[in-house]
Amino acid sequence: MPYLCNTMGYSKHNLNDTIVALSTPPGVGAIGIVRLSGKEAIHIVNQVFDEKDLTNEKSHTIHFGTIKDNSNRIIDEVLVSIFIEPTSYTKENVVEVSCHGSDYIIRQLIQLFIKKGARMAQPGEFTLRAFLNGQMDLSQAEAVADLIASSSASSHEIAMSQMRGGFSNEIKRLRQQLVEFASLIELELDFSEEDVEFANRDNLKKLVQRIQSIIKKLLQSFQLGNVIKNGVTTVIAGRPNAGKSTLLNALLNEERAIVSEIEGTTRDTIEEVLNIKGIEFRLIDTAGIRRAQDQIERMGVEKTIEKISKSTVVIYVFDVLESKPQDLWEDVDRFLHGSKALTANSKRIFVANKMDLNPYTKPSDYYKNDLITSENLVSVSAKNQMNIDYLKETLYTAVVTNPQLMDQTIVTNSRHYEALQKSFKSLDDVIKGMDSGITSDFIAMDIRQALHHLGEITGEISTDDLLGNIFSNFCIGK
Amino acid sequence: MPYLCNTMGYSKHNLNDTIVALSTPPGVGAIGIVRLSGKEAIHIVNQVFDEKDLTNEKSHTIHFGTIKDNSNRIIDEVLVSIFIEPTSYTKENVVEVSCHGSDYIIRQLIQLFIKKGARMAQPGEFTLRAFLNGQMDLSQAEAVADLIASSSASSHEIAMSQMRGGFSNEIKRLRQQLVEFASLIELELDFSEEDVEFANRDNLKKLVQRIQSIIKKLLQSFQLGNVIKNGVTTVIAGRPNAGKSTLLNALLNEERAIVSEIEGTTRDTIEEVLNIKGIEFRLIDTAGIRRAQDQIERMGVEKTIEKISKSTVVIYVFDVLESKPQDLWEDVDRFLHGSKALTANSKRIFVANKMDLNPYTKPSDYYKNDLITSENLVSVSAKNQMNIDYLKETLYTAVVTNPQLMDQTIVTNSRHYEALQKSFKSLDDVIKGMDSGITSDFIAMDIRQALHHLGEITGEISTDDLLGNIFSNFCIGK
Repeated sequence: MPYLCNTMGYSKHNLNDTIVALSTPPGVGAIGIVRLSGKEAIHIVNQVFDEKDLTNEKSHTIHFGTIKDNSNRIIDEVLVSIFIEPTSYTKENVVEVSCHGSDYIIRQLIQLFIKKGARMAQPGEFTLRAFLNGQMDLSQAEAVADLIASSSASSHEIAMSQMRGGFSNEIKRLRQQLVEFASLIELELDFSEEDVEFANRDNLKKLVQRIQSIIKKLLQSFQLGNVIKNGVTTVIAGRPNAGKSTLLNALLNEERAIVSEIEGTTRDTIEEVLNIKGIEFRLIDTAGIRRAQDQIERMGVEKTIEKISKSTVVIYVFDVLESKPQDLWEDVDRFLHGSKALTANSKRIFVANKMDLNPYTKPSDYYKNDLITSENLVSVSAKNQMNIDYLKETLYTAVVTNPQLMDQTIVTNSRHYEALQKSFKSLDDVIKGMDSGITSDFIAMDIRQALHHLGEITGEISTDDLLGNIFSNFCIGK
Repeated sequence: MPYLCNTMGYSKHNLNDTIVALSTPPGVGAIGIVRLSGKEAIHIVNQVFDEKDLTNEKSHTIHFGTIKDNSNRIIDEVLVSIFIEPTSYTKENVVEVSCHGSDYIIRQLIQLFIKKGARMAQPGEFTLRAFLNGQMDLSQAEAVADLIASSSASSHEIAMSQMRGGFSNEIKRLRQQLVEFASLIELELDFSEEDVEFANRDNLKKLVQRIQSIIKKLLQSFQLGNVIKNGVTTVIAGRPNAGKSTLLNALLNEERAIVSEIEGTTRDTIEEVLNIKGIEFRLIDTAGIRRAQDQIERMGVEKTIEKISKSTVVIYVFDVLESKPQDLWEDVDRFLHGSKALTANSKRIFVANKMDLNPYTKPSDYYKNDLITSENLVSVSAKNQMNIDYLKETLYTAVVTNPQLMDQTIVTNSRHYEALQKSFKSLDDVIKGMDSGITSDFIAMDIRQALHHLGEITGEISTDDLLGNIFSNFCIGK
């Protein structure tokens, strides 16, 4: 049972209530599921269920029948699934009512259950209860939301591993080692008057450094984790007619076929998404940029530069038949280099288009000091799909700079990242303290601080505000 | 088991396959349900389910576990519900896999089940199988789709009653009576050489007429049924600044509050929907119409007249402070009366707005022969919400001209309407035949024809084409 600083103050949620919500996506479908959780869940549904007494039924059983409203009108024929505490998602009594997927029926059922004593669930309240009842720790609960939002193999894999406790176990191991260390220090405190050292300071320092090196690896994985979780904003820029759209299509070609292969699923099309080895690149086409001739064109160019400045990767396309090296360098100078357009973290990839038609220049003619190099210049023919795979490889490498990170635990959550940073900082203080020979009680304080921050990740330490923040981002019904 | 003219030719569906589909609405949610039906359903899921042997489990039980793909990667932690034939929706083995509601996971699961031997379900194929396996008749199957689409109390009630067999029973009773009648006639045929009459012709005629009168009532209910099922397209027209938008808001006032009361549901907002006693009026605001001053304005007026022509009800609003009776009559002449704008079935309601501010004229001043009368002119103050309830009552009465129809079986399906018409026509032929003294074998033929058309409604008579038409309008997964 996790420690909650102030459970009574968690005013929005009365955890003794029985809650109800639609758990399937809204909209018309074959099936909708209305879920209840809480002491009265089975009793509430039983009051309006026609065929039998549900309170006598076993856990994990399904019952067909009708649900009638107060005026004895049939709302729907349903299947009722019963889960008796503690063998349910929330560890409370849970009932899932599987009805016809009509908005009208779902509204009627929820209203009826509210009349009979349930209340509308807050966002994420089912999972909050699962956490508070010890079904999962906090980082596992957070992984549930990540899992639902995951749209690629990599993000799915990380979320799944985190939900199943992979990350939590890593943090727990770290805490365990720190606790051992702390106990030695605290032992010294007990005997402080006698001025003994129970633990060799050098060995202790090595232990802290080992823990720090593990945390450092986790911290380093965050950039990759972020990229895997949220995808990579990738702007395709270049002069008008340089072949930006053709390149976009060439990149998406295979991907599109995969998408249309699977029926029954929808896909947001705000941007085009290109999946390279599990990393999602969100491709954004832009208007061509060149020295602006008039007011309207200037606005277009500014808009593109704005998009570039918000992107993680810029693919700058140029047509080798039209652009001499000097032209490319001028464009880069004007639109990419030295302008506000590129932040420290953003990557540039130069695509020399129509290289197959060009007898005059070779790729290396376009290189310029460390700005345009063999590493980030790719020659292609967008039209003929030449070298597109190599471009993809280059895109992937630009973002996944450290592929071996893929095999370790990856941090994807900025809350975890911050807690790890704080923990790392406290361990720094421990080492500094030992180096400067401060007394054991100060060292113990820093260690407790480091432990506290690690505990925040798994929720062994949590506050109402923290929980409120985390679960309010869940959908209702989860 | 219904008679299927040519089951083997039902080429799109191989009914021996095990089918799979997402049964909940697409999109992100807490829970998604992937459903399988067919002989191999349990076996297919069992191959990839980790925790236990599902083939040994009882019907109507739920099992928690993980599903792994071919490379032993966990796709999701799921709840698997098992239904063993014939105690399932389709009367086949059915498995429902309840997973986290992520598009990615759902795609992975469906692909995996397809790899293991299932195939993607056609639209409505689960319900088609329920019909073919005798779980429900055709009009009940059709009601499933209506039920899912129902968005008001009335449409829900009709669909529910039809799904539970109310309509089918009515048709079956009619068929039963006709069959008795037919058997008497056919008996005469057996003894035709002897020229006997087993049944009194007058009594027979009365029986046929009684059946016809029931069919006639059902036919009459169709207009109402259509209105209940599809709602009433209602255009609000009038001069600029007559108060159209204010009236729209006044009408919707209460309704809006109800909609925002229930969380977790969405609502399409193409038009505003006003629900009056279970009938949905789809309100469409229009640009003001008046004698066009220029080309652009003329186009606006034409657009409004176009909308009017497609509507079932026109609410024509005028400002009594601005429009004298003569003005109203001229507008009506120009825009409503005698133009292409109004079809025979469309209703006109005139709303005299700002009547509370008007000391000069009384409502009756605006009456004009049978075009504008006390029946269809309503005085209101849109701004002050005066008389809005009376306007709603008038709207309701304009559409539900025969409220007592509400208590009987209502036909909502145009296929049923056509079959009933044909059946009625065949019974007409029976009576004509008896009157003109044609031989019993011709009478018997007409009766068989009437029986045939009634049988089409419940699916006792059906063809592949008919089934294809009906079920292709279902969503996938139902």
